[in-house]
Amino acid sequence: MTLKEQGAAAKDAARKLAVVGTEAKNRALERIAGALLDHRHAWLEANAEDLAVAEAAGMRRSLLDRLRLTEDRIASIAAGVRSVIALPDPIGRTDRTETRPNGLIISRRRVPLGVIAMIFEARPNVAVDAAVLCLKSGNACILRGGSEAFRSNIAAVRIMREALSGSDLPEDCISLVQDAGRETARELMHLNEYVDVLIPRGGAGLIRSVAREATVPVIRTGEGVCHLYIDEKADLDMGAQILHNAKCSRPSVCNAVECVLIHEKIADAFLRRAVPLLDAEHTELRCDENALALLGSRGVPARDADWDAEYGDYILAVRIVSGLDEALDFIAEHGTGHSEGIVTDSLASAQRFTHEVDAAAVYVNASTRFTDGGEFGFGAEIGISTQKMHARGPMGLEELTSWKYIVCGCGQIR
Amino acid sequence: MTLKEQGAAAKDAARKLAVVGTEAKNRALERIAGALLDHRHAWLEANAEDLAVAEAAGMRRSLLDRLRLTEDRIASIAAGVRSVIALPDPIGRTDRTETRPNGLIISRRRVPLGVIAMIFEARPNVAVDAAVLCLKSGNACILRGGSEAFRSNIAAVRIMREALSGSDLPEDCISLVQDAGRETARELMHLNEYVDVLIPRGGAGLIRSVAREATVPVIRTGEGVCHLYIDEKADLDMGAQILHNAKCSRPSVCNAVECVLIHEKIADAFLRRAVPLLDAEHTELRCDENALALLGSRGVPARDADWDAEYGDYILAVRIVSGLDEALDFIAEHGTGHSEGIVTDSLASAQRFTHEVDAAAVYVNASTRFTDGGEFGFGAEIGISTQKMHARGPMGLEELTSWKYIVCGCGQIR
Repeated sequence: MTLKEQGAAAKDAARKLAVVGTEAKNRALERIAGALLDHRHAWLEANAEDLAVAEAAGMRRSLLDRLRLTEDRIASIAAGVRSVIALPDPIGRTDRTETRPNGLIISRRRVPLGVIAMIFEARPNVAVDAAVLCLKSGNACILRGGSEAFRSNIAAVRIMREALSGSDLPEDCISLVQDAGRETARELMHLNEYVDVLIPRGGAGLIRSVAREATVPVIRTGEGVCHLYIDEKADLDMGAQILHNAKCSRPSVCNAVECVLIHEKIADAFLRRAVPLLDAEHTELRCDENALALLGSRGVPARDADWDAEYGDYILAVRIVSGLDEALDFIAEHGTGHSEGIVTDSLASAQRFTHEVDAAAVYVNASTRFTDGGEFGFGAEIGISTQKMHARGPMGLEELTSWKYIVCGCGQIR
Repeated sequence: MTLKEQGAAAKDAARKLAVVGTEAKNRALERIAGALLDHRHAWLEANAEDLAVAEAAGMRRSLLDRLRLTEDRIASIAAGVRSVIALPDPIGRTDRTETRPNGLIISRRRVPLGVIAMIFEARPNVAVDAAVLCLKSGNACILRGGSEAFRSNIAAVRIMREALSGSDLPEDCISLVQDAGRETARELMHLNEYVDVLIPRGGAGLIRSVAREATVPVIRTGEGVCHLYIDEKADLDMGAQILHNAKCSRPSVCNAVECVLIHEKIADAFLRRAVPLLDAEHTELRCDENALALLGSRGVPARDADWDAEYGDYILAVRIVSGLDEALDFIAEHGTGHSEGIVTDSLASAQRFTHEVDAAAVYVNASTRFTDGGEFGFGAEIGISTQKMHARGPMGLEELTSWKYIVCGCGQIR
């Protein structure tokens, strides 16, 4: 099957899926959850082959761990599918109705986007998570996973499609690109006739290359060069706790802070509180000249590239600023529009910061680590959008929908 | 100034514009309205040059008329600017607020998209309409008009920028690409670093080439191959009136019907009512075999291309169908997702049609000509989106916005 044929099949399936009710979708999801458990051995075997190949190729241990499936992990993936069953279905909801002066009744009804393509990297749970969120929101999906998890993804998609074959939903609601080469990824990025939205999930390199290349509509996700600004009037202990949490609780995720900006007047006092916390995780501090003067041998000099780096590791860029204006300018220049935070007790500073910072989520006196669909109360998330078109911030089921206007009349003409 | 420099200037202006209040924006709009009237002679002179060049090049009379400015038209354009002043400002509105179990207060606030690029064709009013809607919604715009209206657009943008220079808003909120060549249009389509959204306005050829080529986020607008389906149980007189209105009231616009699908059981009776109305406008009827058998010499045989044609003229494709299923399949295959209508007295048929047709606006017993920002109550429109991402259907001020989440805490960590 060519990718075009696969696109046409997905589009056809999407048309059927769009008009299926919530109960039928939930039954299909329950079948998928059951099938993933019933056929877990086949999935584990495929995963073992991926692991063997990756190990032979010298993959790092932390990446091998991300790639690995276990009985426990499969149980938790299946539980995740069941939690999506419990979420409210956004499709069919009418969120506006108006009777116009001429008697026309215009209502706006939530509908699926259609066909969602996902390009993602190594973790084998992503194929299931993404397929299930697309299905619940009435969208067919075309998945294209990384080559490292190729056999695992084939097995997962086969299990899910078999589960669908006994349901009211067409199998082609879920399909996998059967070739992990770069050429098919490029073709997918230009499949304008069939793909309504493409969501890349993975590292900054993947996201940027998709955004540069794709002509299908793209939602950029997960690029997070996030800052925390410690204001002159901050509660410094609170600031130190927030910085420690935002940097060290899980440095590999996109909502982790990469750079702290510190008001010059409280820089010394703040660093004396924050550094011992960061020390506990052996966090490397890459400093501008002024911070280095305060930190001495505890810091290392930052290079230009550090101010735009998404480390994903126990590394923090540290910079002293003259005040809020400089912090705002710096964030405007170096932020990726993901999550930005201020620690302050000044209402005026908090208001200016939230008003002027252009990012998906702007924090006052809280850790940027809360930018997450679960923490925001969405129940699940397919990614965190860092663009302004369509959806911004954590994307739950509603962000995977569009709308149509239904206009009812009794013969009105214009 | 290179296009890149222009993009950087627009981005810089957008950052300032995003935090300006409604009153300052309205004052700037009032200055623009006044300036367009005060300097109308300069604008008319530039337009006269465009007209002279176009006439010498043999432009059709109807197109020359679209290109022509008059004192009356300028007065009406200035009145349009003032009507935008009266519209509510979407920016800064908080449309959701939730207190999470951990005490975080998360609110969603409307913000501008940033920099909006517009590529449009001949009419000289579009530059002003687009700039003014962008400004009110807090967005900087980069305009790129057609070469026919090049001098008119330069004059209009110069007048608007001069008006801004005495306001609280940076001049670079509005700028024009100073070269109407194809190469700059292509460059604009790839200006990912500076352009948040590109909206093409014009014929199907322009829209499609932008969608195929652009890597910046695009909103497709105004491709309208719209259908009207006359059901077996329709009020045939109502159907004939609606068809006449939807085809003939203004055939050049995108919400006009291009093709009527008629249930075979009432085809003869319906055509006997509809054709005399269409005759009054000398509407050409391009028919499938069955319709031709009924219409005789009044019709002409349709070719394959007629079923996908956006005529924009007094031409109508006519096709007899066996029922609702065939109509739905035909619309799924040939519609452009703009506006689709059914005339029926059957509730079941109306429900299936509105449920299953995938279009921005789906009509029951009303003319498709109502797909329009003004008719929908939006006060103004920048175009009609025929895609599902971001916005669908008429786009008013709110559709030119995004949101950000403001998260307020008191030291929460995760």
